[in-house]
Amino acid sequence: MANNEQQTGASVEDLPRTIELTKDSKRVLLIDQRKLPEDLLFLELIMYEDVIDAIKTLAVRGAPAIGVAGAFALVLFSQNEYKTDKTKTEEENVKHYLYELSRVVKEVGNARPTAVNLEWAVQRVFDIACVCAQTGASVKDITNAVTHEARLIQEEDEAACRQIGKNGAALIKNDATILTHCNAGSLATSFYGTALGVIYSAHTQGKIKRVYADETRPVGQGARLSVWELTHAGVPTTLICDNMAASLMAKGEIDAVIVGADRIAKNGDVANKIGTYGVSVLAKHHNIPFYVAAPVSSIDASIETGNDIPIEQRSAKEITSYETEGLEIYNPAFDVTPANLVSAIITEEKVFYPPYLFGENA
Amino acid sequence: MANNEQQTGASVEDLPRTIELTKDSKRVLLIDQRKLPEDLLFLELIMYEDVIDAIKTLAVRGAPAIGVAGAFALVLFSQNEYKTDKTKTEEENVKHYLYELSRVVKEVGNARPTAVNLEWAVQRVFDIACVCAQTGASVKDITNAVTHEARLIQEEDEAACRQIGKNGAALIKNDATILTHCNAGSLATSFYGTALGVIYSAHTQGKIKRVYADETRPVGQGARLSVWELTHAGVPTTLICDNMAASLMAKGEIDAVIVGADRIAKNGDVANKIGTYGVSVLAKHHNIPFYVAAPVSSIDASIETGNDIPIEQRSAKEITSYETEGLEIYNPAFDVTPANLVSAIITEEKVFYPPYLFGENA
Repeated sequence: MANNEQQTGASVEDLPRTIELTKDSKRVLLIDQRKLPEDLLFLELIMYEDVIDAIKTLAVRGAPAIGVAGAFALVLFSQNEYKTDKTKTEEENVKHYLYELSRVVKEVGNARPTAVNLEWAVQRVFDIACVCAQTGASVKDITNAVTHEARLIQEEDEAACRQIGKNGAALIKNDATILTHCNAGSLATSFYGTALGVIYSAHTQGKIKRVYADETRPVGQGARLSVWELTHAGVPTTLICDNMAASLMAKGEIDAVIVGADRIAKNGDVANKIGTYGVSVLAKHHNIPFYVAAPVSSIDASIETGNDIPIEQRSAKEITSYETEGLEIYNPAFDVTPANLVSAIITEEKVFYPPYLFGENA
Repeated sequence: MANNEQQTGASVEDLPRTIELTKDSKRVLLIDQRKLPEDLLFLELIMYEDVIDAIKTLAVRGAPAIGVAGAFALVLFSQNEYKTDKTKTEEENVKHYLYELSRVVKEVGNARPTAVNLEWAVQRVFDIACVCAQTGASVKDITNAVTHEARLIQEEDEAACRQIGKNGAALIKNDATILTHCNAGSLATSFYGTALGVIYSAHTQGKIKRVYADETRPVGQGARLSVWELTHAGVPTTLICDNMAASLMAKGEIDAVIVGADRIAKNGDVANKIGTYGVSVLAKHHNIPFYVAAPVSSIDASIETGNDIPIEQRSAKEITSYETEGLEIYNPAFDVTPANLVSAIITEEKVFYPPYLFGENA
């Protein structure tokens, strides 16, 4: 049982923070994930519109991370962009601020449709603002509460990831070879990651022999992001193209699959990065456990099944710039893995096993 | 039953020839497939070493096409490179020529390991040379016989493809949506194609609604080659990333899968482009027929199962140029689909159904 972390000296704890709100709460710093793995650059954002742009263009991505980014967008709006009207009463100002904030909540919440965390996070912050308003708080007080709640979402996300890692590591056998798809890593969260959080935790326990990272076309979050963070955290990693996983499974090279989730329906159907469903079918065929790791904020018990999860279609240009008469290009960013192909759903609260029925207590 | 070919005016017959031997038998012209789809450029090759280079660098690829290229390489060696020694007898010259030719046969035959057609074609040409030598032919006569045999391989390949197309089209239902992986098209053969030959034939019969072409990472033979030739032949085509096929199948959007083969074992196991095996598992899971289309020259009854088929490993640089400590890259060019996942093997002789047992009569 080799502790590879100690061998290379690298550790998950050395990874940079994915997204931060500066101490004065007026700027958001985030890793520009479009530039990885070649360059580790940070964007500094001042306006909520900049955050929306960063989310839409995938400078920040990953369900938990865009949830945090969305919450911080509301902070930037409140701290930097909203101005009270001194000719009006505080009550009038609060009413107008909430009206404007609700508009921003919708705009930010709609930046990307599939991950429920974005909607969830901005709604949570907005709810706090509404509660504060009901107690007669000023715009300044509400802004402070919004800022505090956004920071709390970030802190809770990291804590959830660390607990997901701990809960999931218990499922991993010694000397395990793990396949992962896309990036459900530290970069997809505030810090530490969900699927990769399980791997980091198991790696710290000396259980991980190797991780196979799917390239994850078209945007290459596996090739660019998972490979970057896994290697920088000292985890032995092999990059493969998406279409190579099946042959590795046939050779007995994969002990378990672990992926993240963008939204989990009440019945346990999982929307995640395009290609996840195919991996789940392959895992089933080869009798390999298929685990989903996600915070409970990714569970959307308001929808019954994966059929109701909105699937984002993205630009054909992500796949090719080649155009010719008669050619269409299909680019769905996500697919749905039915609950019956999911061996377990690892959350910070507990590990859920089928049959899944998420409701009041999730 | 729409005849799309008539609608657009484009037809498979308008596609350029993949590879040709000039009339004087001294030059090989072939489409440089590395430049497609942006540019249709031809390479002019004079030396057999140039052909080996073209095969290794994928300027020409596809099992039947590299078979023809290999045969033409022997022609170039014989026509342009081998010089008889006038101080020696004709018998001595013939002996020396055959010795040199056998060396070239090995060198060309080893240019790529997985497709059996390359070995098969150069051996077939070499056998003719040996037979001629036994009848007392001169080096010039043998060179003519070698040239004739190479041309015959090319002609037979096109005829086989057209017959494969006809035999396979009978399996395609009306208004069919077909998924294909890699390029087993006209570009992979002398002309017309194997898997895409079936599609062209069915399309001429008005049966094809749409073809989904897998991108086929890492080299992108689907995105670059199949998409180019299908659209230029007037077939409605949608490009997808490899990891998107599963979700299309789940939606009932795929009626059949058709792929080519690089080598088929006696028991019907099929080596083909990496990713083919995964598609076959997905097809099985969704109860979609999975067809392999290939000339009988791709059948290697000398090996029992797919386990014995050599699988070419290619450069990591085909996948990414990113390097970092602890990162490995795995790049097998082929995988093996077990016979039990293959619904039928479509050849020019007949359509074979499981259980497969190829032997003396194949």
